[in-house]
Amino acid sequence: MSLFGLSLGRLLEALRCLPGVGPKSAQRMAFHLLESDREGGRHLAQALLEALDKMTHCQTCRILSETDLCSLCADSRRDRGQLCVVEMPSDVQAIEQATSYSGRYFVLMGHLSPLDGVGPEALGMDLLAKRLDTDQIREVILATNLTVEGEATAYYISELAQTRGITTTRIAHGVPLGGELEFIDSNTLSHAFQSRRHL
Amino acid sequence: MSLFGLSLGRLLEALRCLPGVGPKSAQRMAFHLLESDREGGRHLAQALLEALDKMTHCQTCRILSETDLCSLCADSRRDRGQLCVVEMPSDVQAIEQATSYSGRYFVLMGHLSPLDGVGPEALGMDLLAKRLDTDQIREVILATNLTVEGEATAYYISELAQTRGITTTRIAHGVPLGGELEFIDSNTLSHAFQSRRHL
Repeated sequence: MSLFGLSLGRLLEALRCLPGVGPKSAQRMAFHLLESDREGGRHLAQALLEALDKMTHCQTCRILSETDLCSLCADSRRDRGQLCVVEMPSDVQAIEQATSYSGRYFVLMGHLSPLDGVGPEALGMDLLAKRLDTDQIREVILATNLTVEGEATAYYISELAQTRGITTTRIAHGVPLGGELEFIDSNTLSHAFQSRRHL
Repeated sequence: MSLFGLSLGRLLEALRCLPGVGPKSAQRMAFHLLESDREGGRHLAQALLEALDKMTHCQTCRILSETDLCSLCADSRRDRGQLCVVEMPSDVQAIEQATSYSGRYFVLMGHLSPLDGVGPEALGMDLLAKRLDTDQIREVILATNLTVEGEATAYYISELAQTRGITTTRIAHGVPLGGELEFIDSNTLSHAFQSRRHL
């Protein structure tokens, strides 16, 4: 990349740390910022540095937050008796946007994955266990993904909760609303069949 | 986006200045940088600021460069008699990688587009005309894109060159190497037919 100078080469290299950005996208982004939107580029660099400086994790639920206690944990109107466990902060956002759930959250920041060296400590299971012990929690709602790792993580947490006599629920998995059976993948359909409910 | 704090909201907004990045991609990028790659994020912000500070345009060919004279224009081994006119810096890179062309370049940084208010001045046509007058140029190679705007731009430049008695050539357009006629779009095939050559 020495054709255009070293600093452009470094920018192209740095852009590739973004997920889903390869050499071609990085080049397109760099040229766009340098040719057409230098103001936006400068703004992006500053916003990035500001967010990296300010954003930390909530000490109660591990979500991304600017303060030690996130806005959800600090909200006294939310039910302390319900605890929804999710994998990522974006899952919290999805649930907040789609449902009327008004309990608390716990964000694992991943899932159990022994092959990648991600064990219970990395997911803050000790913090979760402490919350199960001290907060008067009636129900733990497991909303981890329906992948092998997500299922294993849900099982691990359900053990934690059940040894403490806390009700544990798992969000429903099956045919999505508006889904046509013909086009549903066979794993989902098979799961939906096994999990059929009495009416 | 106040769920996670203002600085994340600002970062999400700023990321959307990148081409091809919508709300979902911006969220994925922001979470990735904040959760898994803070080092990379800081590096990206610094590389971006450095490139924005250092990168300017070559005063001879208008390509992106850290110096007033880019490495291609400064290279005395390159033929001053040939001038290849392209739309974008990335086109120069593509030609350098694919061909053995060893002449000079002129980068328009766009194409004539009166509807968007892009006229000859914005494309540096005065600088190009000056080069046609002063550099002893034998051949102008028009390598603008084969779009309506690119064709109009090529026509405009060919007029500039021909009034000065300079040979003007256009890169060939037609069926790509390895292309099968069955799958070529009809415009390209029709163009290839009209531009058939004697063997």
